[in-house]
Amino acid sequence: MKSDKISEAVVRRLPVYLRFLNDLHKREIATVSSQELGQRLDLNPAQIRKDLAYFGDFGRKGIGYDVPYLIEKIRHILKLDQQINVVLVGAGNLGQALSNYNIYLKDTMKITAVFDSYPPKIGTKINTLTVQPMDELASTVREQGIRIAIITVPEQEAQKVADILIEAGIEAILNFAPVILKTPSGIRVHAADFTTDLQSLAYYLHEGKDEEEHEY
Amino acid sequence: MKSDKISEAVVRRLPVYLRFLNDLHKREIATVSSQELGQRLDLNPAQIRKDLAYFGDFGRKGIGYDVPYLIEKIRHILKLDQQINVVLVGAGNLGQALSNYNIYLKDTMKITAVFDSYPPKIGTKINTLTVQPMDELASTVREQGIRIAIITVPEQEAQKVADILIEAGIEAILNFAPVILKTPSGIRVHAADFTTDLQSLAYYLHEGKDEEEHEY
Repeated sequence: MKSDKISEAVVRRLPVYLRFLNDLHKREIATVSSQELGQRLDLNPAQIRKDLAYFGDFGRKGIGYDVPYLIEKIRHILKLDQQINVVLVGAGNLGQALSNYNIYLKDTMKITAVFDSYPPKIGTKINTLTVQPMDELASTVREQGIRIAIITVPEQEAQKVADILIEAGIEAILNFAPVILKTPSGIRVHAADFTTDLQSLAYYLHEGKDEEEHEY
Repeated sequence: MKSDKISEAVVRRLPVYLRFLNDLHKREIATVSSQELGQRLDLNPAQIRKDLAYFGDFGRKGIGYDVPYLIEKIRHILKLDQQINVVLVGAGNLGQALSNYNIYLKDTMKITAVFDSYPPKIGTKINTLTVQPMDELASTVREQGIRIAIITVPEQEAQKVADILIEAGIEAILNFAPVILKTPSGIRVHAADFTTDLQSLAYYLHEGKDEEEHEY
């Protein structure tokens, strides 16, 4: 399997499939068709079959996909069948909110350390985690084998924090700061800025309420 | 312009272009090439030219795109040149954090109302907004002409809140609850669940540290 052959759009859909499959599994549903997946996830069934075919021949004609088998395969593809520790930098409202999502993450992927540069934050607890000072970051990343980071610091601090994280050996960053980070190739960055999510939604507002005529 | 002809992937990239263009504009840079855009945003220049060509013939060969003109065009395409009021339901840590993003949104798009069902939250202030009780939602949505909603309530309340919002006339939802909402067609929902973002990042972790061989 060559990572760079599969588009980011496909990789981003796999966790969505996984979430729905986990839901089916909890309800003890053993098989699912691409039609059912498509209907539930608002995706074309042919697109779903194509997405999953990148990784192997999982489906059986007339029966569909074996739910537990497909869960196992997607987890393996996404490397979620190994322990992945995540560090979060920025213990404000957003950082605290995200730390609470820990309960939705599988045991193999967890936020295991939280950092902040603001002295009054240091030593405070977020659930079971204690906020640590930035000068402990490199050693904690090393000791815990942390590979992914979440940045929830203000815009003007984000690049500096990214540099520190990469220096410490982080391979991938989920960045919530509304700024485009400069990183070396080989470091994967996903922007989670919700303002772009919100702006793209506006596109889908009903035309009827828009009084101006579009010219193009 | 037919909304349904343009893929969601394109629509989701437009705000990213817009953010970078606004940044150039602030720095008084008048033109930009698709090469520069591509380099900065880690996208293929041909892809960028194709994305923008959906909406009109904006670029000039050898010169590139006129920055202020392209900003104006993208803002128009995304309907960001009109006032869009946004309601947020769920005034916990995440809701509070998102309300703080108001300062990054342009004046035409703002969170103008915040709701919660938890009595001690009601009447508290988040910046300039006062948290309102759920029974005021329908009238506030009507009075303020609110068209977009953000859901930041716990998983088990999200569907109920979505139903109330749609009943009140909301057209698009940004959903942060880790659950797939059932909504009528015509209502646009974007899932902003960060756990799927995080899981898709794991895919890009370096193969070297993964001791198991991939078979496919």
